[in-house]
Amino acid sequence: MIDHHDALTAVNTYLSSLVSSDHQAIVSLYAHDATVEDPVGSDILRGTEAITSFYQHATAALKGAELLGDIRVAGDEVAFPFEITADLGAGIMKVQVIDLFHFNTDEKVDSMRAFWDQNNMKM
Amino acid sequence: MIDHHDALTAVNTYLSSLVSSDHQAIVSLYAHDATVEDPVGSDILRGTEAITSFYQHATAALKGAELLGDIRVAGDEVAFPFEITADLGAGIMKVQVIDLFHFNTDEKVDSMRAFWDQNNMKM
Repeated sequence: MIDHHDALTAVNTYLSSLVSSDHQAIVSLYAHDATVEDPVGSDILRGTEAITSFYQHATAALKGAELLGDIRVAGDEVAFPFEITADLGAGIMKVQVIDLFHFNTDEKVDSMRAFWDQNNMKM
Repeated sequence: MIDHHDALTAVNTYLSSLVSSDHQAIVSLYAHDATVEDPVGSDILRGTEAITSFYQHATAALKGAELLGDIRVAGDEVAFPFEITADLGAGIMKVQVIDLFHFNTDEKVDSMRAFWDQNNMKM
Protein backbone atom coordinates (compact mmCIF):
# COMPACT_ATOMS: atom_id res chain seq x y z
CA MET A 1 0.00 0.00 0.00
CA ILE A 2 1.38 3.36 -1.01
CA ASP A 3 0.44 6.28 1.24
CA HIS A 4 -1.54 9.12 -0.38
CA HIS A 5 0.97 11.75 0.70
CA ASP A 6 3.95 9.76 -0.59
CA ALA A 7 2.21 9.10 -3.90
CA LEU A 8 1.36 12.79 -4.29
CA THR A 9 4.98 13.74 -3.57
CA ALA A 10 6.16 11.32 -6.27
CA VAL A 11 3.62 12.63 -8.79
CA ASN A 12 4.47 16.27 -8.10
CA THR A 13 8.20 15.53 -8.37
CA TYR A 14 7.58 13.68 -11.62
CA LEU A 15 5.55 16.47 -13.25
CA SER A 16 7.85 19.31 -12.13
CA SER A 17 10.92 17.34 -13.22
CA LEU A 18 9.40 16.70 -16.64
CA VAL A 19 9.02 20.48 -17.09
CA SER A 20 12.52 21.28 -15.81
CA SER A 21 14.03 18.37 -17.82
CA ASP A 22 15.63 17.09 -14.61
CA HIS A 23 16.27 13.56 -15.83
CA GLN A 24 18.16 12.62 -12.68
CA ALA A 25 15.18 13.54 -10.51
CA ILE A 26 12.85 11.56 -12.77
CA VAL A 27 15.05 8.46 -12.82
CA SER A 28 15.49 8.62 -9.03
CA LEU A 29 11.75 7.92 -8.70
CA TYR A 30 12.25 4.59 -10.49
CA ALA A 31 13.59 1.25 -9.32
CA HIS A 32 16.72 0.12 -11.21
CA ASP A 33 14.84 -2.59 -13.09
CA ALA A 34 11.65 -0.58 -13.61
CA THR A 35 9.60 -0.78 -16.79
CA VAL A 36 8.15 2.13 -18.76
CA GLU A 37 5.37 1.65 -21.35
CA ASP A 38 4.61 5.08 -22.89
CA PRO A 39 2.22 4.97 -24.62
CA VAL A 40 0.63 1.69 -23.58
CA GLY A 41 0.90 -0.68 -26.54
CA SER A 42 4.42 0.44 -27.48
CA ASP A 43 7.64 -1.42 -26.66
CA ILE A 44 8.25 -1.75 -22.93
CA LEU A 45 11.52 -0.14 -21.80
CA ARG A 46 13.41 -1.63 -18.86
CA GLY A 47 16.16 -0.31 -16.62
CA THR A 48 17.83 2.99 -15.79
CA GLU A 49 19.71 3.44 -19.07
CA ALA A 50 16.68 2.90 -21.32
CA ILE A 51 14.47 5.04 -19.08
CA THR A 52 16.99 7.90 -18.97
CA SER A 53 17.28 7.88 -22.74
CA PHE A 54 13.49 7.89 -23.07
CA TYR A 55 13.08 10.99 -20.91
CA GLN A 56 15.91 12.83 -22.65
CA HIS A 57 13.78 12.64 -25.79
CA ALA A 58 10.37 12.97 -24.13
CA THR A 59 11.15 16.23 -22.32
CA ALA A 60 12.83 18.04 -25.25
CA ALA A 61 9.77 20.05 -26.37
CA LEU A 62 7.87 19.93 -23.09
CA LYS A 63 6.87 23.25 -21.54
CA GLY A 64 4.22 22.34 -18.98
CA ALA A 65 2.68 19.43 -17.08
CA GLU A 66 -0.35 20.04 -14.84
CA LEU A 67 -2.57 17.71 -12.85
CA LEU A 68 -6.21 17.69 -14.06
CA GLY A 69 -7.88 16.72 -10.80
CA ASP A 70 -7.17 14.32 -7.96
CA ILE A 71 -4.52 11.68 -7.97
CA ARG A 72 -6.19 8.30 -7.38
CA VAL A 73 -4.26 6.04 -5.02
CA ALA A 74 -5.30 2.38 -4.72
CA GLY A 75 -3.29 -0.54 -3.37
CA ASP A 76 0.32 -0.15 -4.48
CA GLU A 77 -0.60 2.13 -7.39
CA VAL A 78 -1.49 5.68 -8.28
CA ALA A 79 -3.35 6.77 -11.41
CA PHE A 80 -3.32 10.46 -12.25
CA PRO A 81 -4.72 12.63 -15.04
CA PHE A 82 -2.58 15.44 -16.36
CA GLU A 83 -2.05 17.63 -19.38
CA ILE A 84 1.29 18.32 -20.98
CA THR A 85 2.04 21.37 -23.08
CA ALA A 86 4.64 20.98 -25.82
CA ASP A 87 6.18 23.65 -28.00
CA LEU A 88 6.50 22.15 -31.48
CA GLY A 89 7.93 25.30 -33.05
CA ALA A 90 4.99 25.42 -35.47
CA GLY A 91 2.60 25.70 -32.54
CA ILE A 92 1.66 24.70 -29.03
CA MET A 93 0.19 21.23 -28.50
CA LYS A 94 -1.64 20.01 -25.41
CA VAL A 95 -2.06 16.32 -24.62
CA GLN A 96 -4.30 14.84 -21.92
CA VAL A 97 -2.59 11.77 -20.44
CA ILE A 98 -3.27 9.33 -17.62
CA ASP A 99 -0.20 7.77 -16.05
CA LEU A 100 -0.25 4.71 -13.82
CA PHE A 101 2.62 4.16 -11.35
CA HIS A 102 3.09 0.89 -9.47
CA PHE A 103 5.33 1.21 -6.38
CA ASN A 104 7.56 -1.51 -4.92
CA THR A 105 8.08 -1.98 -1.18
CA ASP A 106 10.87 0.64 -1.25
CA GLU A 107 8.30 3.12 -2.65
CA LYS A 108 10.15 3.27 -5.95
CA VAL A 109 8.16 3.10 -9.17
CA ASP A 110 8.76 -0.34 -10.69
CA SER A 111 6.18 0.05 -13.48
CA MET A 112 4.92 3.10 -15.32
CA ARG A 113 2.22 2.89 -17.99
CA ALA A 114 1.04 6.00 -19.88
CA PHE A 115 -2.40 6.09 -21.52
CA TRP A 116 -2.80 8.47 -24.45
CA ASP A 117 -3.01 8.47 -28.23
CA GLN A 118 -3.33 10.92 -31.11
CA ASN A 119 -6.96 11.65 -30.16
CA ASN A 120 -5.63 13.35 -27.02
CA MET A 121 -3.40 15.76 -28.97
CA LYS A 122 -4.94 19.23 -29.34
CA MET A 123 -3.24 22.07 -31.25
CA MET B 1 -6.17 -2.31 -30.50
CA ILE B 2 -9.47 -0.80 -29.46
CA ASP B 3 -10.78 1.99 -31.66
CA HIS B 4 -11.30 5.39 -30.02
CA HIS B 5 -14.93 5.59 -31.09
CA ASP B 6 -15.74 2.09 -29.83
CA ALA B 7 -13.99 2.76 -26.53
CA LEU B 8 -15.91 6.04 -26.09
CA THR B 9 -19.19 4.26 -26.81
CA ALA B 10 -18.39 1.66 -24.13
CA VAL B 11 -17.42 4.35 -21.61
CA ASN B 12 -20.55 6.41 -22.25
CA THR B 13 -22.76 3.31 -22.01
CA TYR B 14 -21.03 2.38 -18.77
CA LEU B 15 -21.46 5.78 -17.12
CA SER B 16 -25.07 6.29 -18.21
CA SER B 17 -25.96 2.74 -17.16
CA LEU B 18 -24.41 3.29 -13.74
CA VAL B 19 -26.71 6.29 -13.26
CA SER B 20 -29.82 4.48 -14.53
CA SER B 21 -28.92 1.32 -12.55
CA ASP B 22 -29.22 -0.68 -15.77
CA HIS B 23 -27.26 -3.69 -14.58
CA GLN B 24 -28.01 -5.66 -17.75
CA ALA B 25 -26.47 -2.94 -19.91
CA ILE B 26 -23.41 -2.78 -17.66
CA VAL B 27 -22.89 -6.55 -17.63
CA SER B 28 -23.33 -6.71 -21.41
CA LEU B 29 -20.13 -4.66 -21.75
CA TYR B 30 -18.20 -7.43 -20.00
CA ALA B 31 -16.89 -10.79 -21.18
CA HIS B 32 -18.41 -13.76 -19.31
CA ASP B 33 -15.17 -14.47 -17.44
CA ALA B 34 -14.23 -10.82 -16.91
CA THR B 35 -12.58 -9.58 -13.72
CA VAL B 36 -13.51 -6.48 -11.73
CA GLU B 37 -11.14 -4.95 -9.15
CA ASP B 38 -12.93 -1.96 -7.57
CA PRO B 39 -11.13 -0.41 -5.84
CA VAL B 40 -7.71 -1.70 -6.90
CA GLY B 41 -6.26 -3.63 -3.96
CA SER B 42 -9.61 -5.22 -3.01
CA ASP B 43 -10.68 -8.77 -3.85
CA ILE B 44 -10.92 -9.40 -7.59
CA LEU B 45 -14.40 -10.45 -8.72
CA ARG B 46 -14.76 -12.81 -11.68
CA GLY B 47 -17.68 -13.75 -13.88
CA THR B 48 -21.15 -12.47 -14.70
CA GLU B 49 -22.82 -13.44 -11.42
CA ALA B 50 -20.24 -11.79 -9.18
CA ILE B 51 -20.09 -8.70 -11.40
CA THR B 52 -23.89 -8.33 -11.50
CA SER B 53 -24.08 -8.57 -7.72
CA PHE B 54 -21.32 -5.98 -7.37
CA TYR B 55 -23.16 -3.42 -9.52
CA GLN B 56 -26.48 -4.03 -7.77
CA HIS B 57 -24.79 -2.74 -4.63
CA ALA B 58 -22.54 -0.15 -6.27
CA THR B 59 -25.34 1.70 -8.05
CA ALA B 60 -27.78 1.84 -5.12
CA ALA B 61 -26.95 5.40 -3.97
CA LEU B 62 -25.50 6.63 -7.25
CA LYS B 63 -27.05 9.76 -8.76
CA GLY B 64 -24.50 10.92 -11.34
CA ALA B 65 -21.37 9.87 -13.26
CA GLU B 66 -19.60 12.42 -15.47
CA LEU B 67 -16.39 12.26 -17.47
CA LEU B 68 -13.73 14.72 -16.26
CA GLY B 69 -11.84 15.18 -19.52
CA ASP B 70 -10.73 12.97 -22.38
CA ILE B 71 -10.86 9.22 -22.40
CA ARG B 72 -7.32 7.92 -23.02
CA VAL B 73 -7.19 4.97 -25.40
CA ALA B 74 -3.93 3.01 -25.72
CA GLY B 75 -3.40 -0.47 -27.10
CA ASP B 76 -6.30 -2.67 -25.99
CA GLU B 77 -7.17 -0.41 -23.08
CA VAL B 78 -8.96 2.78 -22.15
CA ALA B 79 -8.33 4.83 -19.01
CA PHE B 80 -10.89 7.50 -18.14
CA PRO B 81 -11.35 10.01 -15.33
CA PHE B 82 -14.83 10.59 -13.99
CA GLU B 83 -16.70 11.79 -10.96
CA ILE B 84 -19.60 9.98 -9.35
CA THR B 85 -22.24 11.68 -7.24
CA ALA B 86 -23.84 9.59 -4.50
CA ASP B 87 -26.79 10.48 -2.29
CA LEU B 88 -25.98 9.15 1.17
CA GLY B 89 -29.19 10.44 2.75
CA ALA B 90 -27.11 12.50 5.21
CA GLY B 91 -25.58 14.37 2.26
CA ILE B 92 -24.22 14.32 -1.24
CA MET B 93 -20.77 12.80 -1.79
CA LYS B 94 -18.62 13.19 -4.89
CA VAL B 95 -15.78 10.81 -5.73
CA GLN B 96 -13.15 11.28 -8.43
CA VAL B 97 -12.29 7.88 -9.94
CA ILE B 98 -10.12 6.60 -12.78
CA ASP B 99 -11.29 3.35 -14.37
CA LEU B 100 -9.18 1.18 -16.63
CA PHE B 101 -10.89 -1.17 -19.10
CA HIS B 102 -9.01 -3.86 -21.02
CA PHE B 103 -10.85 -5.14 -24.10
CA ASN B 104 -10.62 -8.63 -25.58
CA THR B 105 -10.68 -9.29 -29.33
CA ASP B 106 -14.52 -9.30 -29.25
CA GLU B 107 -14.34 -5.74 -27.83
CA LYS B 108 -15.79 -6.94 -24.54
CA VAL B 109 -14.21 -5.71 -21.30
CA ASP B 110 -12.28 -8.63 -19.82
CA SER B 111 -10.67 -6.62 -17.02
CA MET B 112 -11.82 -3.53 -15.14
CA ARG B 113 -9.71 -1.87 -12.47
CA ALA B 114 -10.97 1.20 -10.56
CA PHE B 115 -8.53 3.60 -8.92
CA TRP B 116 -9.87 5.61 -5.94
CA ASP B 117 -9.68 5.69 -2.18
CA GLN B 118 -11.14 7.69 0.73
CA ASN B 119 -8.99 10.71 -0.20
CA ASN B 120 -11.14 11.06 -3.35
CA MET B 121 -14.40 11.27 -1.38
CA LYS B 122 -15.66 14.83 -0.96
CA MET B 123 -18.83 15.73 0.96
